[in-house]
Amino acid sequence: MYTLTTFRWVPQFAAGHVRDLRVRWALEEAGMPYQLRLIGPEEQPTPAYRQQQPFGQVPVLQDGSLAVFESGAILLHLGEKSEALLPPDADGRMLATMWMFAALNSVEPYFANLAEQDAFEKDAAWATERRPKLEEMALKRLADLEAHLANRDYLAGRFTVADILMTTVLRLLDESRLAERFPAVRDYKARCTARPAFRKALADQLALYTPAEAAA
Amino acid sequence: MYTLTTFRWVPQFAAGHVRDLRVRWALEEAGMPYQLRLIGPEEQPTPAYRQQQPFGQVPVLQDGSLAVFESGAILLHLGEKSEALLPPDADGRMLATMWMFAALNSVEPYFANLAEQDAFEKDAAWATERRPKLEEMALKRLADLEAHLANRDYLAGRFTVADILMTTVLRLLDESRLAERFPAVRDYKARCTARPAFRKALADQLALYTPAEAAA
Repeated sequence: MYTLTTFRWVPQFAAGHVRDLRVRWALEEAGMPYQLRLIGPEEQPTPAYRQQQPFGQVPVLQDGSLAVFESGAILLHLGEKSEALLPPDADGRMLATMWMFAALNSVEPYFANLAEQDAFEKDAAWATERRPKLEEMALKRLADLEAHLANRDYLAGRFTVADILMTTVLRLLDESRLAERFPAVRDYKARCTARPAFRKALADQLALYTPAEAAA
Repeated sequence: MYTLTTFRWVPQFAAGHVRDLRVRWALEEAGMPYQLRLIGPEEQPTPAYRQQQPFGQVPVLQDGSLAVFESGAILLHLGEKSEALLPPDADGRMLATMWMFAALNSVEPYFANLAEQDAFEKDAAWATERRPKLEEMALKRLADLEAHLANRDYLAGRFTVADILMTTVLRLLDESRLAERFPAVRDYKARCTARPAFRKALADQLALYTPAEAAA
């Protein structure tokens, strides 16, 4: 049984976007049961937790005596255990691995910069002046993705953990709606988020962070 | 023989910082010979190149019929071929893999945001107002690294490709000199950049981008 460490509580704007979603989704796709370990600000700075997660973040996936941190590394680890997450042939795995790194290093930083400014710094005097460049950078990546996805259902041909990462990265643009300008990207995101494993993972995360009175 | 694709020419400020440096370094550590394929702006947008590198960037590493893109994926691929780059045991490889993703997804975006603003947007009206927050984010990551490196020579204990990534990420702070405030991080960076394979890789990249008249 895997143990997934995540936050006990997050502010409402973060509900549905905590990175354990990526791991929950992968575990659901693979049909792997897991339990939660919930932490808060009191655990994050402790040496014991830093030994598992040097930056004090979540998620961490405990697999026996091995504690894996970084959502990308966790998904690669799970991918080695289930063909539902990564193809069995070396070339197919490598292709998916390239797209995992692409999602996290060539795409996410640009989308995150735009999303974070819109969410947290919209009213800063400099935000208006800076935004066109942020949007331009995000649109450039979206155009590259559009070309790649024009004749593919998933990044590496078949569904892999790379699609889990890219979908959560695309969700950073939910507010700006930039992805909706690109039909193949829009359809790809819809295809990924329609998967039962994603719906279940998202519902489970939202249920954790929805106050009991609101859920009643 | 591997073939490494990189740019034929870059502006002087980029010399020594093109991402093929990561791959050159890994190939030197492993004693793997390689040849260069040099491209320019005329190749980057072509469908043939996009099939190898969907974002039109460098590096790409050709290994037989397999073309690997994303420096992280390339280093993981090479790590599977040489114990000089990744330890042979599964847990050791996983630990290094976590640090590879950490370097690229939990550290690089923060350092890059600061470095890019200092390099390209220093004179923007908003840059002064925004900078303290960028510096704060970078310092936070450096403090986390400092704690981890206090009693370790390398991120995963022994030298791995994760150190190649983290060192090139730390070099983004060369201008701001933020890393020099953290003794363990400073010593770690010095330890990594003193390795003969790094010196050779850097010298080779600089030689490519140094105009012949300046080198004469």
